[in-house]
Amino acid sequence: MTYCLGIITRTGLVMAADSRTNAGVDYISTYQKLFDFSVPGERAIILSSAGNLAMTQEVLTLMQRDLKGQAEISLHTLPNMYEIARYIGGKMRQVTDSNRQWLQQDQIDYQCTFLLGGQIRGEGHVLYLIYSQGNFLHATPETPFLQIGETKYGKPILDRTLNYEISATAAAKCALLSLDSTMKSNISVGPPFSMVMYEADSFLVKHRAEFVLGDPFLVKVRKFWETSLRQAFEAMPDIQWHEKLEHPAPMDSPASESVRDDR
Amino acid sequence: MTYCLGIITRTGLVMAADSRTNAGVDYISTYQKLFDFSVPGERAIILSSAGNLAMTQEVLTLMQRDLKGQAEISLHTLPNMYEIARYIGGKMRQVTDSNRQWLQQDQIDYQCTFLLGGQIRGEGHVLYLIYSQGNFLHATPETPFLQIGETKYGKPILDRTLNYEISATAAAKCALLSLDSTMKSNISVGPPFSMVMYEADSFLVKHRAEFVLGDPFLVKVRKFWETSLRQAFEAMPDIQWHEKLEHPAPMDSPASESVRDDR
Repeated sequence: MTYCLGIITRTGLVMAADSRTNAGVDYISTYQKLFDFSVPGERAIILSSAGNLAMTQEVLTLMQRDLKGQAEISLHTLPNMYEIARYIGGKMRQVTDSNRQWLQQDQIDYQCTFLLGGQIRGEGHVLYLIYSQGNFLHATPETPFLQIGETKYGKPILDRTLNYEISATAAAKCALLSLDSTMKSNISVGPPFSMVMYEADSFLVKHRAEFVLGDPFLVKVRKFWETSLRQAFEAMPDIQWHEKLEHPAPMDSPASESVRDDR
Repeated sequence: MTYCLGIITRTGLVMAADSRTNAGVDYISTYQKLFDFSVPGERAIILSSAGNLAMTQEVLTLMQRDLKGQAEISLHTLPNMYEIARYIGGKMRQVTDSNRQWLQQDQIDYQCTFLLGGQIRGEGHVLYLIYSQGNFLHATPETPFLQIGETKYGKPILDRTLNYEISATAAAKCALLSLDSTMKSNISVGPPFSMVMYEADSFLVKHRAEFVLGDPFLVKVRKFWETSLRQAFEAMPDIQWHEKLEHPAPMDSPASESVRDDR
């Protein structure tokens, strides 16, 4: 599995990804899932991918070939992020079309998704989620994050801490906690984690971080977070129970009336 | 959807459930999912259910009929919890067999699961998860909780705070946070929440709680938890970035070498 996360705030973008892939639990590998296609000073383009690895790699390869062959249409020539999302979606459709029949007949899941974050000179910074079918949506201030892959474990911390107005630096901390929570609860998501932070209107991805297993900072953050949670937990008020000291009516049983009648 | 959670600790059991069911997002209802079949002083039996509601209701009805008809074999006559788990599994198989053909031909998901917690005089307290197929497993000190339904959102908080040696009172707080996290992140899980706490060797379910939407205690706990998380979050050390101030090598791109060659 995979977990990739994109966060957009008023002042920037954060994109983060784990690097574990698996075909069943007995074939686990490490692959980079966060890719920087920026042209410093002109356009910031960061991509992350989840889903069928053969599909996402082929999509990336096709886009690289366009870059290498200096094709008329590529990640470096398209005029805005919307067109880039459409272009990536088009590549996904192309790769899907060329493989679907063979994958379908063996019931192989060929779904894949991309997160695309960035900014091209002349427009604001944006964050897209591009579906396997090639269509896409963008994050908005009301819901300033998008996730792909194994999304559920890492969502509660985002729901509690994120909003569009926090700093990109704070958003990066949210992202790390979200990845770490996911990794702790699901063995199919694992380090190294890659993360980038992009400051709006800089057209330059200045902040990168990679956390390998046992990275001292990652260990420190996890320890800090677990201690903080435990302290918060210990300070939490006790539950107010309805004490029923003798013969509690079996009211929680759907048979309560009839069971009682029979006694 | 549904979220039910059982926790076993050295000194007791906690069982908790939400009460939301849905058939699609446009048909949401409230159903009790936590049932107490205890015989005070002799046996504590608490059940919770997830999955296809018609299936779980029929399983419960069959068990109630055995109780009402004073059948030789019932939740109140079986000699130990293992036999009770087998009995419930048997009812699930029976209900599945009598419906499978009609549900399968319309591709309806008829899976359901039960959590069974309790204790019968003469043996220790136990927690079982009974699968749709009628087989089951029990929780152990290494992994002292079992979940059914929408399990992922509520797992990180358990992974960070729970262990077998904490008090049942603390386990109940974990359970409430786990339910609340799930509810916050997934609209298909919702209040009222039901919860019971059972003290080992008491053979009496003394502690019950129900939290309706807007329950002052639930509101207080949520506010407390969110404030605590935010404070912890603000105190968290900043990420140590690798600052790359000019022309970052596009090393994160799989095309990095070739792209660079072309420039």
